[in-house]
Parts: sequence; C-alpha cells; structure tokens
Amino acid sequence: MVNEIVIAVLGAGTVGSGTVKVLKENAATVAARLGANIRVKKVLVRSLNRPRPELNGFDVTDNFDEIIADDEISVVVELMGGINPARDYMLRAMAAKKSVVTANKDVVAAHGKEMFAAAEANGVDFLFEASVGGGIPIIAPLKLSLAANRLTEVMGIVNGTTNYMLTKMAQDRADYDSVLKEAQAKGYAEADPSADVEGLDAARKAAILASIAFNSRVELSDVYVEGITKITANDIEYAKELGYTVKLLAIGRDLPEQGIDIRVHPVFLPLNHPLASVGGVFNAIFVRGNAVGEAMFYGPGAGSLPTASAVVADIIEAARNKLDGNAGRIKCTCYENKPICPIEETVSSYYVRLLVSDKPGVLGVIATTFGNAAVSLKSVIQTQREFDHQAEIVAVTHAVKYKNIMSALENLRRLDVVDEVQNMIRVESV
Amino acid sequence: MVNEIVIAVLGAGTVGSGTVKVLKENAATVAARLGANIRVKKVLVRSLNRPRPELNGFDVTDNFDEIIADDEISVVVELMGGINPARDYMLRAMAAKKSVVTANKDVVAAHGKEMFAAAEANGVDFLFEASVGGGIPIIAPLKLSLAANRLTEVMGIVNGTTNYMLTKMAQDRADYDSVLKEAQAKGYAEADPSADVEGLDAARKAAILASIAFNSRVELSDVYVEGITKITANDIEYAKELGYTVKLLAIGRDLPEQGIDIRVHPVFLPLNHPLASVGGVFNAIFVRGNAVGEAMFYGPGAGSLPTASAVVADIIEAARNKLDGNAGRIKCTCYENKPICPIEETVSSYYVRLLVSDKPGVLGVIATTFGNAAVSLKSVIQTQREFDHQAEIVAVTHAVKYKNIMSALENLRRLDVVDEVQNMIRVESV
Repeated sequence: MVNEIVIAVLGAGTVGSGTVKVLKENAATVAARLGANIRVKKVLVRSLNRPRPELNGFDVTDNFDEIIADDEISVVVELMGGINPARDYMLRAMAAKKSVVTANKDVVAAHGKEMFAAAEANGVDFLFEASVGGGIPIIAPLKLSLAANRLTEVMGIVNGTTNYMLTKMAQDRADYDSVLKEAQAKGYAEADPSADVEGLDAARKAAILASIAFNSRVELSDVYVEGITKITANDIEYAKELGYTVKLLAIGRDLPEQGIDIRVHPVFLPLNHPLASVGGVFNAIFVRGNAVGEAMFYGPGAGSLPTASAVVADIIEAARNKLDGNAGRIKCTCYENKPICPIEETVSSYYVRLLVSDKPGVLGVIATTFGNAAVSLKSVIQTQREFDHQAEIVAVTHAVKYKNIMSALENLRRLDVVDEVQNMIRVESV
Repeated sequence: MVNEIVIAVLGAGTVGSGTVKVLKENAATVAARLGANIRVKKVLVRSLNRPRPELNGFDVTDNFDEIIADDEISVVVELMGGINPARDYMLRAMAAKKSVVTANKDVVAAHGKEMFAAAEANGVDFLFEASVGGGIPIIAPLKLSLAANRLTEVMGIVNGTTNYMLTKMAQDRADYDSVLKEAQAKGYAEADPSADVEGLDAARKAAILASIAFNSRVELSDVYVEGITKITANDIEYAKELGYTVKLLAIGRDLPEQGIDIRVHPVFLPLNHPLASVGGVFNAIFVRGNAVGEAMFYGPGAGSLPTASAVVADIIEAARNKLDGNAGRIKCTCYENKPICPIEETVSSYYVRLLVSDKPGVLGVIATTFGNAAVSLKSVIQTQREFDHQAEIVAVTHAVKYKNIMSALENLRRLDVVDEVQNMIRVESV
C-alpha cells in the first residue's frame, strides 16, 4: 500500500498557486521525507469562470461544502486571506476532524484563541508558520527549538514593504513619497499602502510572535502602533550621523513587573545590531532567551514560493501527524495570562527633532525644558538653516518613560522659541 | 496522575552542567509546554571523587550499567563528547529502547549512519540539534521547517574560535599569532587549537549539515579542509580594499551533475552577503532552497547555556514522542546516495598573492602565465615594497576549476620573477 495524504487548498492566489506548484515540483522530495505522497484533491476558488492554467489537472471547485463532505480529505490548507469566510471555513474543517494549515495572519492575530480551542477540541492540528515572516522558519523554532527558554524579547523586521522603503530612502537619500511611488511601481507596495506603512500588518505579526514567545495571548488591539509615514530623508541622515539605521520594528518584551510590552514603530537601531543589516524586502526575527542568549532568523518575508515553503512544511507536519495518529500533538502554548504594559509606562531612549528660532540661548532653554520633565539628554546637535533664522535641534535622550517624554514635548511646544516638534523616534540599544 | 519523563544525563562538563541547570531553572516553563515534568534521575560522571556542587540533589553515578538497567529512564542525554565510550553508550541506550539526545558532533559526523539505523531498528529517537551551531536552531529547521524545499546550498560560519580570531584580525589589524594568544587567554581557543584553526571542527559540522540538507550521507573524510593558519594581516587588508571580509566557511552544494561539493576553507566574502556581518564568536548558517530562496539562522555557536538550549529542546521533543507513543517519528533523511564532487572539479574564484621581482614587464609575464592555464583574471593590484626590489601582486580570478588554478600556480612558481606564492584564498560571490 502506498501511503497517501489527501488535502484541499482554499484559494488560488499568490500563495495558493505557489503552494500547488511547490507540492508538484518537489513531490518526490516531499514524499521521501514524509514517507507518503501528498495529493491535492480539490482547490477552492471564488469563481470557476476565470481560466487558471496553473491549476490544470486539479479538481477545482467553488463549493466549500464539497470539501467538508469529502472524508478522504484530512488536511485543509486555507490561503484565501481575510477574516471571512476564512475563519468560518477553518472552524468547519476542524469540526469535521480535518487538520488546518493557514497563512492567514488576520485570523491568527484576531481569532487565534478560538482556532486553538477548536483544534484541541477536535484533536487536529492548527498550523500557521506562514502567517509571520513568509518563508522564514520562526513559529516552529519558537515553539519547539527554543522551548527550553524563558523568552524575554522578540523583535522583528516583519514587513518587507516598509523595510524596502526605508532601505531605499537611506541608500538614495530619497524622500518618503518618491520611494513609496517606486515601491508601488515595482509591486512591493499596494495601491492603498496603509496596512503596511501605518504598521498594521506588522502589528498582527507582533501579536502572533508575542503570544507564542511569552505563552500568553496578545491581541492585535494590545499592540501600540506607529507607522513610517512621518519618517523623512532628514531623519535618516541624522540616524546615519549618529551611528544608527532606521527600521520599522515589531517589538515584544516580557517585563518582570509591568507585563508584556508590545509595539510596532520606527526605531533608530545601532549599526552593530544583528537586525541592522537586514535590507530590502527581507525580514528577520531576533529573539532573546535565558538559555540561548540571542538568536536570529532571516529570510524572505513574502512572495509566492517562499511563503509556500512555510505552508508546505506545515502540510508535511500535519500529514505526518495524521499518519502517526497524532494530530494535535503541539498544544496551544498560551497557558498564562499576563497583563499588557500600558504604553505610558514603557521605557525608551528617544530621538527628537525640533525646529527652533536661531537665537542665542535657545539650546539652554530647550535642555532645561527636557530636564524639568525628568528627561536627561545623551547628545544634542544644532544645525543652522541658511534662511529664515531657524535652526534644527536634534536631541537623543537617555532611557525615559513614555509619559515623561510626552510631557517634555508638550512643554517644548509651548515655548516661543520652538516653531515645531518635527519628529520623535525611539532609539534602541544593542 | 502527573505525567513525568525520566532521563539520565551522561557527562557533567560544560554542556552537561548547563543542561541540568536549564532543566532546573526553567522546569515550570518546560513542564507547561510539554504537559509533563522532566526528571533527571541519574548523572553519569567519570569520577565520583571530584566535588560537584552544581549536581547537588542529583543521583550521581560512575556506572553506565545502572542507567541501562533502569527501566524508568526513557531518554539518555549524551554530553561526554569524543567517540568512545560515547558511541557505545548511545548504541546500548537505543538497544534498551531509550531515546538518545546528543551534542556529539564527532559521533554524528563519523557514525551517523549507524546511529540512525539503531534508532530506526529500536523505534526510538536519535536527536542531535546541539551538534552544529551550539544554541542555533538549525537541524530541526532543516529537517522540518524547510522540508518543502530541494536545498541546493548550505553555508555556515560554524566555528566560533576562528570567527573570533578573523574578526579580531580585521578590527585590530593584528596578525594571526597575537590574536591566537589573545583568544587562548580569553578561553575562546584551546591550548592545542589545531581542531579549530585547521578546520576539522568545522568539517564535522559541514558533514552533518550537508547530510541533512542533501538527503545523502556525507562523511568527515569527504570534506576538503583548509584552516586559517596561513591567513595574514596582509590578506585581510587586501580583502577590505577589494570589498570583502575573510571568513572560515563550511560550504556544501548539491550540484546537478558533479554531486556534492563539500569543503571547509577561508573565503573572501562580499560585504553584502548575509554571513558577512556575523562577527566574534557568533555562528550562522545560510541555506538556499528552490522554494524559500535564501534563509539564515544566527546565534551563539557554543557555550554552556546556549548549547543546553538546543539539548533541552531535543529532550522535550524526545519526551513528547515518548508520551505520545511516537518515538522515532522523524526518520533518517539520507535516503539518497549522491557522489562527492572531487576537489579538482570544484569551481571558484581565487585571490592569489605573489611576491615578485620589481621589474618592468613582470605583471605581463604573470598575467600570461595565468592565461596559459585557462585562468582569466578579474582584477590585479601591484604594490611596491620599499626595500629589496620586490613587489606584491594580488590577482583575483574569474570562476575556474581547482585543477586549473593549481596548474597556474605551479607554472608561476617556476618563473624566475616569482619569489613566492604567498597565499591563495577562494572568493565567494553573493
């Protein structure tokens, strides 16, 4: 008897067609490693009218009920994206004792708990390696390879669009708008880029990573989010001058007292940080644990075949567990219930860029204003503008609470000599 | 009933004591993730006479028979190192239906096939994550997370001692001998550093990585090895000038025609390669696959707790499989039998540094000699020495077969104007 695992794929977009392609091209390798063939019996599409040469030879359907009713299908691979009907389909698949593999960060970030509960109740797998970091192995390594650790930090470049844009801005000394247009022309940014540039995509991944790393459910709504829309060529020049690079990071920290500090925002990252050299559309996730120290996982954060690499790895795992009679072997690891640290209580160093009147004594007034809000400064740069009697002051603070920097900025805005607080960006240390 | 898995640890050196420490300090976390406690019932030591405060509370023995005879012990963790008696103990443990976890690169590289056969015959696990890259998750990610790929390249900085030395030589413009002394003083290099600096340690890891990546057994004796002992401060300066950094790499490639190209040697690595920024004692493994594209795994390559992180992850996996009645779920993946590409047939670019007579026309003679051996040059630098009428010529070749560069060097040595072929180092592209 030839062992065989029969699956269905929901969705034939970028990731769906990539998954079908990888399963076909690497069929022999996958079968040898698993000890069984994987057969795609059905592919669910929205419309049967559109020609799909890449699905030739596959049984294409627009009716999910056919898949649910088919007892031969033991693994359902959801690659449609979006909350509905993906969530409903996955719950129905699990209720029908089919294991589920998904790349759907929206559902995992918003409904992870429900999904895990359904998997456990039905004794099936719910696997989602592809939901974070595209092809980068990160979910299984966090859950399994680093399981000996109490993890204290997970920090990642998890959005390729914004990393491409920031890398380009630094390389070409270009401004935000021109780089966004270029990214859109190259297909790296969508026509409506808001989910990427405003940090929401990264926030979903931050919630997923933190939930796994810290054994406690973190929801999208727990994540403090700032995007990159306010970053200027100017900020990037100052970063270089000060020995940093600008990155949009998803940062999760398990603090001993305050709970989980979870946020997405741009940072000034020291050039010797392992994440600093991750350029272009690549992603990387940096992890700190009490046994391993630090580790980093690097690779392509998106794309048809890289994401399919992660999806097919999960399919192989789900198939192996079905063959072994061991579906559901890895349980949900959110067995704790840690509080979320309010953003006001989080501690960071800050870069602050101010436009001020170019008068003697201004620097002193500004330094005093920072000091009065209990914000001590690490360095200050003042540059003169040739016209209009204005100067730019760039201050980098020592580590302070968010509420203190906010009160310093409020006081600065009230000063006559301050024309504008132009930007405020967090500064990471190594 | 409280689930419990009972284990024995063989060896109480750096990794053994680290493993016991991690299991103790992170016991609650590990138990929550696994759903069972892990209890270290016995620790095997060479001599009972030496005081070992770190093993207080553990049952210490110098008799392996006690461990074999103890039916309660279901997982044996071998952390003694060396071939004997480690190999024998592991085989006996598996014969007694105990799963085995090891950090022993010597045994895995030299006797991997025998170990896997024993594991399969006895229906137990044989796990060895810690044998390559210390705390870096790489064996499980290669076997599982990248299982959807046909992997074509695995390339790593897998020896921390030599990476520390090369990093130091570059940073301080220091020479080999002084950096080796410093590394020895800091405990990064051993009194007899030969296994590290001559590349043998890296070669064992190269054999293990290539075996897993390419599904075909690669033995230590298959690996072509050059160490770093001939690298001078001079070479590192030229590397910088040409836009490279010098690294000792373990390189495995699965070539479509010639078989597995497997070697360890220093390389000139372009600064924009993901491995180029891996400095000091850190390790990293870079992988190329036909779905994922490229991925990299970075972290601490050695040390008590980092290595214990990998060992304990394997213990958790072995324990889970014992609890599930599924020990041996991951089979040996060396199901192919690929030839090894002879070193003469391998293709590289080369950096060649020559000491020549400083006479007009020398460069022409040398370029012609390269050309006559079918070696075409990409760039040539000539520098004059102030004394003794000698000049240094540095040539970088295009990609050529090893046998061609060797024949070029032989002809160069015969020339009157060539005083010495000072070094030859391979050059990698991105």
